[in-house]
Amino acid sequence: MPAHAATDVLARCDALAACSEEEGRITRRFATPALGRARGLVEGWMREAGLATHVDAVGNLIGRTAADGPALLLGSHLDSVRDAGRYDGPLGVLVALAVAERLGDRTPALEVVAFADEEGLRYGTAYLGSAALAGRFEDAWLARRDGDGITLADALRDWGGDPGGIAALARDPATLRGYLEVHIEQGPVLEARDLPVGVVTAIAGQTRASLTFTGRAGHAGTTPMDQRHDALAAAAEWIGAVETTARAQPGLVATVGEIAAAPNASNVIPGAVTASLDVRHSDDAVRSRAVDALRAAATDAGERRAVAAHWDPVQANRAVPCDAGLTRALAAAVEAQGLPLARLPSGAGHDGVALAAVAPIAMLFVRCAGGVSHHPGEAVRADDVAVAIDVLERAVRGLG
Amino acid sequence: MPAHAATDVLARCDALAACSEEEGRITRRFATPALGRARGLVEGWMREAGLATHVDAVGNLIGRTAADGPALLLGSHLDSVRDAGRYDGPLGVLVALAVAERLGDRTPALEVVAFADEEGLRYGTAYLGSAALAGRFEDAWLARRDGDGITLADALRDWGGDPGGIAALARDPATLRGYLEVHIEQGPVLEARDLPVGVVTAIAGQTRASLTFTGRAGHAGTTPMDQRHDALAAAAEWIGAVETTARAQPGLVATVGEIAAAPNASNVIPGAVTASLDVRHSDDAVRSRAVDALRAAATDAGERRAVAAHWDPVQANRAVPCDAGLTRALAAAVEAQGLPLARLPSGAGHDGVALAAVAPIAMLFVRCAGGVSHHPGEAVRADDVAVAIDVLERAVRGLG
Repeated sequence: MPAHAATDVLARCDALAACSEEEGRITRRFATPALGRARGLVEGWMREAGLATHVDAVGNLIGRTAADGPALLLGSHLDSVRDAGRYDGPLGVLVALAVAERLGDRTPALEVVAFADEEGLRYGTAYLGSAALAGRFEDAWLARRDGDGITLADALRDWGGDPGGIAALARDPATLRGYLEVHIEQGPVLEARDLPVGVVTAIAGQTRASLTFTGRAGHAGTTPMDQRHDALAAAAEWIGAVETTARAQPGLVATVGEIAAAPNASNVIPGAVTASLDVRHSDDAVRSRAVDALRAAATDAGERRAVAAHWDPVQANRAVPCDAGLTRALAAAVEAQGLPLARLPSGAGHDGVALAAVAPIAMLFVRCAGGVSHHPGEAVRADDVAVAIDVLERAVRGLG
Repeated sequence: MPAHAATDVLARCDALAACSEEEGRITRRFATPALGRARGLVEGWMREAGLATHVDAVGNLIGRTAADGPALLLGSHLDSVRDAGRYDGPLGVLVALAVAERLGDRTPALEVVAFADEEGLRYGTAYLGSAALAGRFEDAWLARRDGDGITLADALRDWGGDPGGIAALARDPATLRGYLEVHIEQGPVLEARDLPVGVVTAIAGQTRASLTFTGRAGHAGTTPMDQRHDALAAAAEWIGAVETTARAQPGLVATVGEIAAAPNASNVIPGAVTASLDVRHSDDAVRSRAVDALRAAATDAGERRAVAAHWDPVQANRAVPCDAGLTRALAAAVEAQGLPLARLPSGAGHDGVALAAVAPIAMLFVRCAGGVSHHPGEAVRADDVAVAIDVLERAVRGLG
């Protein structure tokens, strides 16, 4: 493998892409036969590379090199979103495996990990696999049901897992040197800067909310403009404020991705509108100020039209900074390749969010075409993958 | 009936409300047994009032007073929208009948007409009944199918009508003095002015369009604001322009009632948005200028974000002015009641749109609670209905 490591990684991503619940597109939910097939392929490749493998109680696959002592975890996840691309997750697992193969029994010991659930497609969770290693798996999750009414506990048991054994997966921080993950950027920044890789500064904090604007439905032909309580007009003004607020603050992103109007008829003034909000920044204070401003903007846009604006919090996650020491090792490895060093936050969540509870974390992003992700159009370049393998190998050697 | 005409009209509206295709709510589509029952009740009341009745080939019920010569048509429709109120249509038929009962065999002759289809719920048409009298019924409509696949021709035949006889229903303008309709306002203007009735100046012209904004979907966390092509942000700016443009022009109403985003997920930047537009004004030139401005506004909002804005025309109807002479008669009758004269356009369409092809038309609006219409909450006051009966009677006498 060493001679053509990058093209081999891409070929393996193709092989994993064939493991799917759905004909003609990639969907690998937690605890499904499709995910089991993918995991089996990776386990075989791990063994070929000389790693000692095991599948843990929650379904994570771990392959360890021969050295003793605290391990450096390298990896990513094997599950996918619906109609996914082939690199989000698998690329990080296979780059980690390529590096472990190159490094053999050197110290630090490496554990290549392929997490069983990061996307949370089946149970609406996130980081099931890494949460288990972080001691953050919540028992209540076992009672969640998928779209077919199957509980997480039953699905896991049917898949050969052991719900009762999950608590014992929590890692003692003393056994871990850290967690390093390679992942496609899922954004357009590296492509815009014409760089193959970039070092992640932090996984951004995120606030999600659901807004409801409640006005009054009315006849589109007979209600004068000055007697309307148009919920969509209020929502539209607020959506404009979301865009303006985010544009005014470097690094801030804010998105209204979902919208629904009622009664949603062309000849009726919308009486109610619901809309989603997603705000992210790597500095929690910046995010918090933006969220406050957008909440006030919703109220203002409503008041001008006697439309009530209601804010339902959905989720709020603090930013997770990457570890300075691990990040320095990655940065030094990038510069040793003769490449400009790009530092960028991760707007998307990753397993490091959970693992940060038990280990220092760091991440390396790989350029992806058009920033496209969670879509069959995901694409990476072989020479970029080669850079990622070299950088991760050099960073790990630097930590030896 | 004369002693308590208004309360009797309301009681009859209640009786018609019980004729429905659906238990617990009012739905009377064209050529259904429910509409037939309602028509049968009205025919009985017409006969009690001494009118000579007949049902024509398209299912309209007409009751004529005894006088000879050109007739003044008075009436409205008996069909309804789904989950309708009880006054939109029936009130106009029953007020007309109350007036015909009072006037007996005076000239001009009166024809009280209860049209079989104005709302167009079943076949997506409008003014089927009045279009037939106006000689504007299109043969192609007979081939339309309802949600169950039944053609209009078959439904009409099953209902006792005669598709082949519709063409002969076209009225010679020489036989008609005009068409007068009483209708609930379906808007809040009279209520806001504290007036029981108002005289309609024109039935507004209407432009309908469907807008599509096509940008690029992207990850809500990883796509910087300056690299987005957010279709919903573009649509929101345009929705703001729709509201602002309409507010700036007296009498103009413009509404975005429908909106849909794709992929419509909270963590994905909307790649595409479709939205409806409905613009109405009683002056076609004003409407046309507004439509041009809104079309340009959509392009502008798109261009700022490299989002394509596509405009699909859906429908454009010219305004139908009310006849000066008939409207003068109504206005004089309002003032003879000692009431302030309110003149207002009709933002909604009515049978007069079709009948204007063969007769001068005029309309009297009755205040309705909260401007609510096309909804079970439709409500009118008995004393307002009494005013409407008196005004219509006086106007008709004035035309005698």
